[in-house]
Amino acid sequence: MSVEPLRYEKLAGELATMISGGVLAQGDRLPSVRQLAQERRLSVSTVVQALRQLEGRGLVEARPQSGYFVRPAATVRSEPQARSTPDAPMPVDISERLVHVLQAGAQPGVAPLSAALPANELLPIAALHRLYSGVARRHPQLLETGSHVHMDLPPLVRQLVRRSLSWGAPLPAEEFVITNSCTEALNLCLRAVTRPGDTVAVESPAYYLMLQLLETLGLKALEIPCDPRTGMSIEALELATRNGGVAACLLVANGSNPLGSLMPDDKKRRLAALTASRGIPVIEDDIYGDLYFGDSRPWPVKAFDSAGNVMLCASFSKCLSPSLRIGFVAAGRHRAAVALQKTITSGGTNPLTQMVLAEYLESGAIDRHLRHLRRTYRNQVDAMRAAVSRYFPASTRIAQPQAGYVLWIELPEHIDTTQMHARALREGLSYVPGELFSPSGMYRNCLRLNCGNPHTPEIDDAIRRLGRIFGGGEGTPQAGRG
Amino acid sequence: MSVEPLRYEKLAGELATMISGGVLAQGDRLPSVRQLAQERRLSVSTVVQALRQLEGRGLVEARPQSGYFVRPAATVRSEPQARSTPDAPMPVDISERLVHVLQAGAQPGVAPLSAALPANELLPIAALHRLYSGVARRHPQLLETGSHVHMDLPPLVRQLVRRSLSWGAPLPAEEFVITNSCTEALNLCLRAVTRPGDTVAVESPAYYLMLQLLETLGLKALEIPCDPRTGMSIEALELATRNGGVAACLLVANGSNPLGSLMPDDKKRRLAALTASRGIPVIEDDIYGDLYFGDSRPWPVKAFDSAGNVMLCASFSKCLSPSLRIGFVAAGRHRAAVALQKTITSGGTNPLTQMVLAEYLESGAIDRHLRHLRRTYRNQVDAMRAAVSRYFPASTRIAQPQAGYVLWIELPEHIDTTQMHARALREGLSYVPGELFSPSGMYRNCLRLNCGNPHTPEIDDAIRRLGRIFGGGEGTPQAGRG
Repeated sequence: MSVEPLRYEKLAGELATMISGGVLAQGDRLPSVRQLAQERRLSVSTVVQALRQLEGRGLVEARPQSGYFVRPAATVRSEPQARSTPDAPMPVDISERLVHVLQAGAQPGVAPLSAALPANELLPIAALHRLYSGVARRHPQLLETGSHVHMDLPPLVRQLVRRSLSWGAPLPAEEFVITNSCTEALNLCLRAVTRPGDTVAVESPAYYLMLQLLETLGLKALEIPCDPRTGMSIEALELATRNGGVAACLLVANGSNPLGSLMPDDKKRRLAALTASRGIPVIEDDIYGDLYFGDSRPWPVKAFDSAGNVMLCASFSKCLSPSLRIGFVAAGRHRAAVALQKTITSGGTNPLTQMVLAEYLESGAIDRHLRHLRRTYRNQVDAMRAAVSRYFPASTRIAQPQAGYVLWIELPEHIDTTQMHARALREGLSYVPGELFSPSGMYRNCLRLNCGNPHTPEIDDAIRRLGRIFGGGEGTPQAGRG
Repeated sequence: MSVEPLRYEKLAGELATMISGGVLAQGDRLPSVRQLAQERRLSVSTVVQALRQLEGRGLVEARPQSGYFVRPAATVRSEPQARSTPDAPMPVDISERLVHVLQAGAQPGVAPLSAALPANELLPIAALHRLYSGVARRHPQLLETGSHVHMDLPPLVRQLVRRSLSWGAPLPAEEFVITNSCTEALNLCLRAVTRPGDTVAVESPAYYLMLQLLETLGLKALEIPCDPRTGMSIEALELATRNGGVAACLLVANGSNPLGSLMPDDKKRRLAALTASRGIPVIEDDIYGDLYFGDSRPWPVKAFDSAGNVMLCASFSKCLSPSLRIGFVAAGRHRAAVALQKTITSGGTNPLTQMVLAEYLESGAIDRHLRHLRRTYRNQVDAMRAAVSRYFPASTRIAQPQAGYVLWIELPEHIDTTQMHARALREGLSYVPGELFSPSGMYRNCLRLNCGNPHTPEIDDAIRRLGRIFGGGEGTPQAGRG
């Protein structure tokens, strides 16, 4: 398990340090590609790769015919820091509080800042409805009994295999199990490889639904510190699993929720090797993998796994429609166990909906749609960062997501976002309090915002009012960018 | 909790004893309704009710303008007897063997006698496809994000409430949670009211999927003896729960699987009262409730529950299409806990499919369809009983299902259906061995047959060959009735 960073990562890291240290100030032009290549004795393509990574991280921006420039202040505000976590695994108990937060946040009239849901106008709803109508006519046998017995439709699996070409390596069709959502996929994987009372290593902060899953399955959570940019600490995971006792590792390597971190390839490689060598199954949620802000589709941890140890879960809820309720898992050597859990948990997945998704993926519309969506989400996240930067207290730290559309914010130490939540709700505002992302209740001065909606004046005003609740000064409204 | 049978039940019981004792022989005409009413000082309607119950139990048949007659020999063969069960709860371990049995039974060329699946020609597949096509066009917003947040579509819940009028009492809309199948509903209920390690009271024999559910949730099964006609023994349940320690009771009161038993109203009333008074939640699977062979829709246990203690689960997999993957639970006072489990388990249920089901139920087509289906399933079960009677060893006992389309058969003591299964498979035959219906491995001389298909000459021949494997003489083929 080598820790050596790749050359382009090394260069990117050095330039990032210069930016965060102020050596390169906002608006500064970076040395040209040719200059960097000559000076550092690197190939042009390595330099370009480094610059694109910096661009993906929001630190620099390319201007046509002019080169790369350090991005404006809002984007270089301090980011949250990795925190140390409790040594011991612990039972989870967040569900009741979380349900209250999400239900309250979904009430009419409340700004849509809590659940991670995209705006409808960003989704191809009409195209999906047309496909349903056509598929139901063109495939009149889909609802017959036979399709229940062999529930995973070959056309959908074929499309998923095709898509897996951009995930680092094509996955064998036999690995796939189609599910009723990514959530169900995560459930099946956990049930396949754990027993009640087991310990599961999770990110800190972790996606609350993962914590809820552990809670209802009677599993304990072991929080592993995460870097806000690069995700789970491999060193900490190595330490935590040295003496056994960890039954699985559950994480989001691409666009973690809530941090928006993106694990570099080298860390993914080390994670895959470490867990395989210790026999710890990895359950990877890649639902944000297609919604990257960088140059190219980030590979999942699964791409670096040759042991069949990684179960890759995802769905199209974040880019097509959360109402389809179709997800999948490529379950490696755990495929049979996961398929059995599927049979027991919900029997199968509606074949008509599977065919709708298969035809959408086959049409090629998905790639055009995703290109547009990535730009849109990125702009929305940028706009939200800028708004938080304007309206929240000066010492607020703001994450710099690399994918997805949620934003993690760290307020000054003394602000308790759980306590403030009731007041925010009374004012028609919502968010998810930070403590719900940790079984040990860390992150009480943090919160997560949904950036799935265009940054309208209404959203901007909501952030302004939220900032006031947290003691921020009144910045100048500047909306309509999203 | 009174045990007094109702008057019509008393009369029916007496007549049944006369038939089984041979006082009334096959083909005999029963006394007329007027005669019985006069002699027994009962109202005409009570007598009619008793005769109809006997008819529902397959003991007598009405002939137009002639009265009621004792049915032919096949229907009065001995039935399996209730067996005593282990006193202690035990962990379940059947999944691997079961998966093998079901997969092998679903291979092409194997007679469809194992999984409880109906023939496609009995299902309204074309109508459902037409509805999908129309619904997708007429409701162009169904896949939008909002419908994810409030995932249970009001039109479907309204139709379920309307249907619940024939379940004894209309259920409040607020009690419903829509799920991705009856299986998922059972899962959610178990997860809502149990913790790993808990004990759940189940029928003996019990539906294998219920046992699998307990297995994967780390729950122990406590087998409660069942009468092949009237289901779970309330006395045994009373004894078994006297000292606490039972976290839930899981059963099929209407058309139990595999027995096909139908619990009489009085037993349901006592079950509801007993469990409520002891605080034991009841999870009731009513998937066969609409497929009764008697006169009128049997009520679920839920109808006798005023404490909100019974969770009623079902779906339309057995009568519309197993591929729809839509079920529901009316969860009483456990509604919030079940809804939470739903959120965590699979998030929601596809609203387009919900609307398809809602429109089908609203159209009224369902009632015509069910009338036809009940007759068909009943004929198929009758034909299967007759075939087993012809071809299986003379001392074979055959259940007399009151609903559904599975048939439970008890072979002579020395025949081991698990051991014989491999040989049956080699000959292109399949069934579910009896031991898979019990966590303690009871019922090794029993098996379950699927009667979901018309009794064609091929099916009849399959039963003949199966009978030969079990050492039966060669009866005279007589098929094509189904």
